[in-house]
Amino acid sequence: MPDKKKSNQKDSGRKQKTAIQPTRLENYAEWYQQVVRAAEMAETSDVRGCMVIKPWGYAVWENIQQGLDGMFKATGHRNAYFPLFIPLSYLEKEAEHVEGFAKECAVVTHHRLEPDGEGGLQPAGALEEPLVVRPTSETIIGSTFAKWIESWRDLPLLINQWANVVRWEMRTRLFLRTAEFLWQEGHTAHATEAEAMEETLKMLEVYREFATEWLAMPVITGEKTEGERFPGAVNTFCIEGMMQDRKALQAGTSHFLGQNFSRAQDITFADRDTNVQHAWTTSWGVSTRLIGGLIMTHGDDDGMVMPPKVAPAHLVILPVLHKEETREQVLAYCEQLAAELRSCRYGDAPVRVELDARDLRGGEKSWQWIKRGIPLRVEVGPRDMEQGAVFVARRDRPHSEKSSIERGEFIGGIASLLQEIQAGMLQRAREHRDDHIRVIDTEQAFYDFFGKTPEGGGGFAMTHFCGSTELEDRIKKDLAVTVRCIPTRGQGLPGQDEAGTCPFTGEPSATRVVWAKSY
Amino acid sequence: MPDKKKSNQKDSGRKQKTAIQPTRLENYAEWYQQVVRAAEMAETSDVRGCMVIKPWGYAVWENIQQGLDGMFKATGHRNAYFPLFIPLSYLEKEAEHVEGFAKECAVVTHHRLEPDGEGGLQPAGALEEPLVVRPTSETIIGSTFAKWIESWRDLPLLINQWANVVRWEMRTRLFLRTAEFLWQEGHTAHATEAEAMEETLKMLEVYREFATEWLAMPVITGEKTEGERFPGAVNTFCIEGMMQDRKALQAGTSHFLGQNFSRAQDITFADRDTNVQHAWTTSWGVSTRLIGGLIMTHGDDDGMVMPPKVAPAHLVILPVLHKEETREQVLAYCEQLAAELRSCRYGDAPVRVELDARDLRGGEKSWQWIKRGIPLRVEVGPRDMEQGAVFVARRDRPHSEKSSIERGEFIGGIASLLQEIQAGMLQRAREHRDDHIRVIDTEQAFYDFFGKTPEGGGGFAMTHFCGSTELEDRIKKDLAVTVRCIPTRGQGLPGQDEAGTCPFTGEPSATRVVWAKSY
Repeated sequence: MPDKKKSNQKDSGRKQKTAIQPTRLENYAEWYQQVVRAAEMAETSDVRGCMVIKPWGYAVWENIQQGLDGMFKATGHRNAYFPLFIPLSYLEKEAEHVEGFAKECAVVTHHRLEPDGEGGLQPAGALEEPLVVRPTSETIIGSTFAKWIESWRDLPLLINQWANVVRWEMRTRLFLRTAEFLWQEGHTAHATEAEAMEETLKMLEVYREFATEWLAMPVITGEKTEGERFPGAVNTFCIEGMMQDRKALQAGTSHFLGQNFSRAQDITFADRDTNVQHAWTTSWGVSTRLIGGLIMTHGDDDGMVMPPKVAPAHLVILPVLHKEETREQVLAYCEQLAAELRSCRYGDAPVRVELDARDLRGGEKSWQWIKRGIPLRVEVGPRDMEQGAVFVARRDRPHSEKSSIERGEFIGGIASLLQEIQAGMLQRAREHRDDHIRVIDTEQAFYDFFGKTPEGGGGFAMTHFCGSTELEDRIKKDLAVTVRCIPTRGQGLPGQDEAGTCPFTGEPSATRVVWAKSY
Repeated sequence: MPDKKKSNQKDSGRKQKTAIQPTRLENYAEWYQQVVRAAEMAETSDVRGCMVIKPWGYAVWENIQQGLDGMFKATGHRNAYFPLFIPLSYLEKEAEHVEGFAKECAVVTHHRLEPDGEGGLQPAGALEEPLVVRPTSETIIGSTFAKWIESWRDLPLLINQWANVVRWEMRTRLFLRTAEFLWQEGHTAHATEAEAMEETLKMLEVYREFATEWLAMPVITGEKTEGERFPGAVNTFCIEGMMQDRKALQAGTSHFLGQNFSRAQDITFADRDTNVQHAWTTSWGVSTRLIGGLIMTHGDDDGMVMPPKVAPAHLVILPVLHKEETREQVLAYCEQLAAELRSCRYGDAPVRVELDARDLRGGEKSWQWIKRGIPLRVEVGPRDMEQGAVFVARRDRPHSEKSSIERGEFIGGIASLLQEIQAGMLQRAREHRDDHIRVIDTEQAFYDFFGKTPEGGGGFAMTHFCGSTELEDRIKKDLAVTVRCIPTRGQGLPGQDEAGTCPFTGEPSATRVVWAKSY
């Protein structure tokens, strides 16, 4: 929940009407759904748990893909594509793995339809072996790796796949938890344990950097406890962000799989001494869930707020076309302005410009763009033209705050203005997060921190921890709070540098862990 | 089949060993499979009919995606994403459509797995309504369009989706026909019949231009006859290329759907006079099949030959590292060369450079790159360094033909060299195609043309045609030849400008059609 003092709502005493109802303070969960809808990013479909990603939401995903893909390729990975279907027998090879996914998978049992005798159709052509729609691809990719890898010369094998996956979740929520979602899954094989662990941590760092620099979403990196590990993994590492309601969002995971999958699928190689060994494997993924995190990190009571690096468009030009006699001139001026801005670059990409000349009332148009979260709105009317100026509003400032900027100065400064917005959004999110991290040393203080209403408390609690799974289960049951991660050292988190005692059991503890409610 | 006189094989009398066995002349179908394998582009998986697209093949798809996506966006389309699953009841709404796909679809009937009592698992949690894995998305996207469209202001609606689809084909072949494949499917809705038809033809033209300019694959555009139409379409238009064995490959289709799907799914809008009308819709798609077309258009008896515009890499630098004392120097020189080349541009993209410093015999390494079809191989040894030169071999020339080029000249001329190769490949493919188009006016000549062994004849036959479906069926049965399309006028095809008489029935005919064997 945002602090009242920091809310974008005006603090003038009278109730200010916001574009999104309810506000974050009134009902955060419902506010989220309304922002997704008002920003035209996604909607539910008639297929249980599957979403339709609308163009404005999909464009964010395209920008995420482009950014991450560049980082994957720069670290030596290549893309490939593997089958959508996994034979049941493959899944069964790794016992923990299949147990983790058996309860929620779409199963294909037939390969055609035939008339049912009542004017409709029914499944026909039963398959000998049922196929599971991939919930993740360790098994099918592993079986391919077993064929590709013969000797140490074939290692490391560094592959990534962009794909859709299906997990038959019972309770779904747009972007955050859907039956079908889009993601990337990296899969790598290495000759040694050390190299595989290095890869696992390298990709965790790629995710941290991407979340921070592109999504303006500060995250904590760390290792999961045993109960929260990926089914079949030896260690699972994650990045965890804090949303505005102070809950944690697991935004990406990187798994060290040891030799579990290489043993299950016989991924072996001849080493330099021609001894046959099992390879060491990793997998790592982020998904369209990141878009949910983006909304919950940056959205406000007027709708979405897009960080420029992943915004579908950086700015919209809104020509003021009240008067018929200046209409043509204003439009021509705006088109010229759009062309000049498009020839500028922000980072590695051209500046993305929309020109909205639709025949709609100016206020209505402007509010559509506010709700979609476009970083800059640029109004141009006859008076601005005469003055050689543009009238600019920033989405990260109150919507009534606009300023006239000389045209050339605006164009010349566009990249630094966008970067200022990007950096400001990260800064604001980091302050929110840091304000709600507490070092806690007693059970009572811990229960007080999480036990109150969301307005009253909550956030990330850093305590020492003995490591007991029973204790984790008890706290989960009592407070719906879990260990989000055992944080990596050196992130500047408070109270991490000394050993201590678990406040719940009194047992010794080498490091603090991060507890939170989560999505 | 390639003409003997034009074959890349040396015509010196003695049998030249080629990298691919069998050659195109010996067994074209098997040659194709061997090229896919030798070029490391794809392989069959253990899942019936599903392929694994390997990195070198997937990179071609990424380049195809990038090129087409730019053209779609430049024509006003936006990307979105719709569910993988289609409820059976949706498919049933359009009678022809469901009939067209019922015989080959993957059906999901359960949503979890449970122990089968014998140590294995079995499907459980039967769905109330079976879900079909999308074979194409007209019905699911149409149902969404029905919600999005209210008035004429919402039209045209121009959407594209990049996705995987599944058609349970019985006989599969890598890239050309697989159970799962990757594609894009455009779906648009318009206020008038004329606008929808204009869109259908505009996207056909986009496909023609892409095939020609990017894939160096000349294609004929035209309309399908009734029997070859997309299930549910009013008209289907296509691009058809001629492969080296003179068979046709349908490389892309654009469908005018009339109001068939808008009636089935109630896609209506209020027009300017507030009358409610059904929208007019289109759909259009190309798939990973294009990669099969690329191989069969350009591959030779040494493997793949990549047109530079879609080649995963434009050139490979092969350092000559025989002598330990010059090793470091040569490597440094090559890295510098790679960096300078990467800063050059070819078209809209940076020049893509591989540097292959693996510890392999030079011949073996070189042949790997020949088989993969990389446009340029650049060898650099101590002598080249001294001379400030590079030693360049072109994939579109015999592999022993190499020339020494001054370093700066090579870098400065890289874009025009690549463009020369691209243009030359198109020219060669066009000559092959044009050499095998015949204007035919008697049934006897037609049967002679197609009845001989592949070496002896075949190609594209242009005849007048009365339009009889029975006739088409008879010829298909006799010769396995079908009408590929009724070609669009103005493509410079021979004999298209006069009306005439169907050589099979003697009925009048307004225009000639193109007949061929096909994939």
